[in-house]
Amino acid sequence: MTPDGVTFAVWSRERQQRIEDVLARVLPGDNAPAARLAAAMRYSTLGGGKRVRPLLVYAASELTDADPARADARGAAVELMHAYSLIHDDLPCMDDDALRRGKPTCHVAFGVATALLAGDALQSLAFAVLAAAGGDDGCRLLADAAGYAGMAGGQQLDLDATGAALDADSLAQLHTMKTGALIRAAVQLGARCGRALALDETRALDRYATAAGLAFQIVDDVLDVEGSDASLGKTAGKDAAQGKATFVTLLGLAPAKARVQALRAEARAALAGFGRSADRLAELADWIVLRTS
Amino acid sequence: MTPDGVTFAVWSRERQQRIEDVLARVLPGDNAPAARLAAAMRYSTLGGGKRVRPLLVYAASELTDADPARADARGAAVELMHAYSLIHDDLPCMDDDALRRGKPTCHVAFGVATALLAGDALQSLAFAVLAAAGGDDGCRLLADAAGYAGMAGGQQLDLDATGAALDADSLAQLHTMKTGALIRAAVQLGARCGRALALDETRALDRYATAAGLAFQIVDDVLDVEGSDASLGKTAGKDAAQGKATFVTLLGLAPAKARVQALRAEARAALAGFGRSADRLAELADWIVLRTS
Repeated sequence: MTPDGVTFAVWSRERQQRIEDVLARVLPGDNAPAARLAAAMRYSTLGGGKRVRPLLVYAASELTDADPARADARGAAVELMHAYSLIHDDLPCMDDDALRRGKPTCHVAFGVATALLAGDALQSLAFAVLAAAGGDDGCRLLADAAGYAGMAGGQQLDLDATGAALDADSLAQLHTMKTGALIRAAVQLGARCGRALALDETRALDRYATAAGLAFQIVDDVLDVEGSDASLGKTAGKDAAQGKATFVTLLGLAPAKARVQALRAEARAALAGFGRSADRLAELADWIVLRTS
Repeated sequence: MTPDGVTFAVWSRERQQRIEDVLARVLPGDNAPAARLAAAMRYSTLGGGKRVRPLLVYAASELTDADPARADARGAAVELMHAYSLIHDDLPCMDDDALRRGKPTCHVAFGVATALLAGDALQSLAFAVLAAAGGDDGCRLLADAAGYAGMAGGQQLDLDATGAALDADSLAQLHTMKTGALIRAAVQLGARCGRALALDETRALDRYATAAGLAFQIVDDVLDVEGSDASLGKTAGKDAAQGKATFVTLLGLAPAKARVQALRAEARAALAGFGRSADRLAELADWIVLRTS
């Protein structure tokens, strides 16, 4: 609970509903000229997902005393970018996955070609939404996080690693790009919504986001081993089935869990200078670590 | 020739070289963490293409008395966006094409997964480059042109049309989105580089771009019938082979060519109010119409 007396459970549910409404508003509707594309975009974005990245945007924005309305477009932009990456990641030429968020994946529901375009158009929409909110260099930050040195580059490293022996450092590098870059962008975009931060504050938030992002990925690896399809809403055990290196295969299950706890402590320590204003971000780090799906 | 005494042939060659240099500078190099992805991005962007869209950016920027340096990032951004669209358009799930710009397509050279990511990362890079140039709402304009109501939406209409009976108006609508939106964005981005334009000037340029963009597409359809693989640098006759509706199949060859001439006149007429400062744009419209590849 934070100084405003609202529990994390209430806060996160309220913000998840809020971002759902924002996403529903910015996504194209049935009357879009390419209606099938619009339907695929909505199918893969609405009504599912933990909304971790928008929650990070909101929590970081609150740390700067910003009105939540200032964070809406930024939260939507990172979630649209995330939704696009999931669609492309699930495609037959990538992970070839049939289940996502408890539903058939986009290409199973709409065909591969439309799924490809839905991902493409969601990336464009992320920038459209962010640019329409205006007033800062958010587009550059998001573009760098999504591009060759961030998310897309991490996906390539993931491809390169298939069948190759990878050590834990290389795997951490891969995930720092593949999932970490967008999580860091979420925190930075949120932190730009309110009062200007000092450089050391921005850096502290980046340390928080880096640790939380890596913890998030290792938890994913642990859940892939310990979870079920039903609890995860996606295919469990697929890392092992594909012979992919994960933190669990490289470190072992117990050490992987210990690493998660160390990263959780690191994330919380990075917030020390902010006092109570960072409570929500601290709670988010806990939530990332303790989640079961 | 324009008032500065430089012929179109010299101007266009100089600008093509200039944008090549800009693209080479902004694209990731061999030392990028995901080297294979970087190589695919460079492969599909450098050393080929007519650079129609950057030339439109430069020509429109000159109309506003802008320094070419102001147009570099905008020209690169639209060309990166175009390069991404070609990679995805050539993928097996789309047109399944093996030849582009006289070389094997990206997925033939690098595999489907890396080609997918190269397209994704080129779209991100387009926004990164444009945002880094700063100072206007160019990102929103480009994002709208690329997204569900523009290029990606047009691709979806193209998919929807496969095997369906399409009339000439629907085909024009399709191409207005699929290729026209980015061409219009190129002209508008160029026009924002220098002196501020009046609203009726901006609208006149948009009429020019709309006509030139549609002419460009119809010429493409004509060349698909009349050209060879060697002259086009891509597979000729593929529209007919895929049973796709084109302006040639819908209107006939001679009426399609007449439509091109009408659009050329329309494009030139839209420039009437600008006097000699629009000569380069007029020459570009001619070049689009008279090209043989």
